[in-house]
Amino acid sequence: MNIKITGTGSYIPSQIEKNENFHNHTFLNSDGTAIEAPNEVIVEKFKAITGIAERRYAKPHLNSSDLAFFAAEKAIDDAKIDPETIDYIIVAHNFGDVKHDTVQSDMLPSLAARVKHSLRIKNPKCVAYDILFGCPGWVEGIIQANAFIKAGMAKRCLVIGSETLSRVVDHYDRDAMIFSDGAGATILEATEDNGGILAHETASFTYDEAYFLHFGKSNNTKLASETRYMKMEGRKIYEFALKEVPTAMKTCLDNSGMDIKDVKKIFIHQANEKMDEAILKRFYRLYRADIPEQVMPMSIQKLGNSSVATIPTLYDLVKNNQLENHSLNKGDVIIFASVGAGMHINAIVYKV
Amino acid sequence: MNIKITGTGSYIPSQIEKNENFHNHTFLNSDGTAIEAPNEVIVEKFKAITGIAERRYAKPHLNSSDLAFFAAEKAIDDAKIDPETIDYIIVAHNFGDVKHDTVQSDMLPSLAARVKHSLRIKNPKCVAYDILFGCPGWVEGIIQANAFIKAGMAKRCLVIGSETLSRVVDHYDRDAMIFSDGAGATILEATEDNGGILAHETASFTYDEAYFLHFGKSNNTKLASETRYMKMEGRKIYEFALKEVPTAMKTCLDNSGMDIKDVKKIFIHQANEKMDEAILKRFYRLYRADIPEQVMPMSIQKLGNSSVATIPTLYDLVKNNQLENHSLNKGDVIIFASVGAGMHINAIVYKV
Repeated sequence: MNIKITGTGSYIPSQIEKNENFHNHTFLNSDGTAIEAPNEVIVEKFKAITGIAERRYAKPHLNSSDLAFFAAEKAIDDAKIDPETIDYIIVAHNFGDVKHDTVQSDMLPSLAARVKHSLRIKNPKCVAYDILFGCPGWVEGIIQANAFIKAGMAKRCLVIGSETLSRVVDHYDRDAMIFSDGAGATILEATEDNGGILAHETASFTYDEAYFLHFGKSNNTKLASETRYMKMEGRKIYEFALKEVPTAMKTCLDNSGMDIKDVKKIFIHQANEKMDEAILKRFYRLYRADIPEQVMPMSIQKLGNSSVATIPTLYDLVKNNQLENHSLNKGDVIIFASVGAGMHINAIVYKV
Repeated sequence: MNIKITGTGSYIPSQIEKNENFHNHTFLNSDGTAIEAPNEVIVEKFKAITGIAERRYAKPHLNSSDLAFFAAEKAIDDAKIDPETIDYIIVAHNFGDVKHDTVQSDMLPSLAARVKHSLRIKNPKCVAYDILFGCPGWVEGIIQANAFIKAGMAKRCLVIGSETLSRVVDHYDRDAMIFSDGAGATILEATEDNGGILAHETASFTYDEAYFLHFGKSNNTKLASETRYMKMEGRKIYEFALKEVPTAMKTCLDNSGMDIKDVKKIFIHQANEKMDEAILKRFYRLYRADIPEQVMPMSIQKLGNSSVATIPTLYDLVKNNQLENHSLNKGDVIIFASVGAGMHINAIVYKV
């Protein structure tokens, strides 16, 4: 028995936020002081580091669970399955449904229960739960679905990553420009077909790193509000990711029995273009190998960082030949790798 | 190989809220109208239905992840294990950390990452994640840990249920009196010892039932605030639970190969005394059997409904002979059963 992805879908919100839209924002340092540069310069510098030119925001009437549902519908269609035959619906997110212009996370009921409700699935044996695991939540959801299939508890699972980060960013913080909204969904099944999940690896670094991403106050220290926003210690995360992600990817690839030369594509969480390029470089350096052309598809330039949604969305785009110069063929060995709040890291080596 | 609970711990907050403390509250109907009865009568009626005389609230400086950490420390001590050997930390909750007198859920990083950080565990192979699954979250966490052990991905897991519901209730709603704060933790391990998990059963009913528990506005319709609170359709939940929980418990017991006469104790989620008694009655009626004396330990009278925390806390109390007329002996067959937001139902048949 092998365990393979048999359907993919994604929901990319239609509202495009270009970098120029931030030209009249008020950006402040974390201590509340003004940044000594015109916004045009701040935005250009931001683009040079992150690669982000534009990002997507969900329309005000839509919530994260709606995005998840739209992506799920497409994945189910793509897999050509009866939704009533799904054994698990796993939704990865970090903030629940945050209604537009509100500050509370609504997770009652869980997003997976909402998605199952929207899909009109009646079968009570279809277990719907949410996982919170930072940006690597979708990859971890796949690893958990894999475990349920291996343990004989499931044959077919729907794993979704969905997030509306535009609603939890601090508009006084330059990092607000990084984050975006979106959802990606995948059907994972037991199959007699060749390939599938060859190896997986997960690590949680919490001793010193637990609060590198956290919920904190606005950079506008004059605001009396108790409202908290997503905050990150970018420099520390960058250094941490460069040290730990390539190693985890190598452990995973070595455990899979595949060679570095077999790897056709690497789908890394779209956190930051420069960081992802540096991770790739270090990963190939561990094997003293050259980086092949077009090995790392990227969507961050146009889609920003939508947390748990980046990898399943990117995979869906490449699978459907919607990303220039990228395609997948049966038998291709690929790697999924992610890093995020926790701090958690994970990787999967997968044969298409 | 069997999979057994080798350690338990719980954290029962020290602050006792007696029913009398609600005598000067302003209770309103869900449409905002006044309730035509003095508070003393409302509170007495409440007690007659739910059995709740008092409940526990966490001290203002403590959050749900702190409660989880305190319970986890005790479970680790009880299991006499080195925390560095734990493969998974699974924290079930529904609202994250809600700081006292604030309305936001803080889950960045996840509560499991916070607990691992507080436990000072260094081992990055210890994977820490949160599950959202309504009140049945702790039972489902045990089922997931069981799957990871079966799939060869873990040998030893820490599963915690923790909640501070006192911070998400609507003080104008009589249901506010039901909910409480607390945490329960358990170590689950692969062992050569007899017994352990014999069978488990999970069902998610979302077609009509998804929003029986939801995040809604205050009963005080004059409040201009956008703040949402935990809301429940008590009557619908009662009828649903009576219909579905006994059936799920029976499926689980039948799958375990055990007889109804083997069952020594049933640990049902402490949602409502009358409801739990009615579930028990229907369960035994399915077997045309009499209900044995002292088969259902209850803590709701003194501890209220702390969601995910009720079952691991109750089990910890009985295991340690801290609940009058209740004890456990090696070889006893017991059932864990829960129902809650989603709506989800689950059950485990377990041999001590």
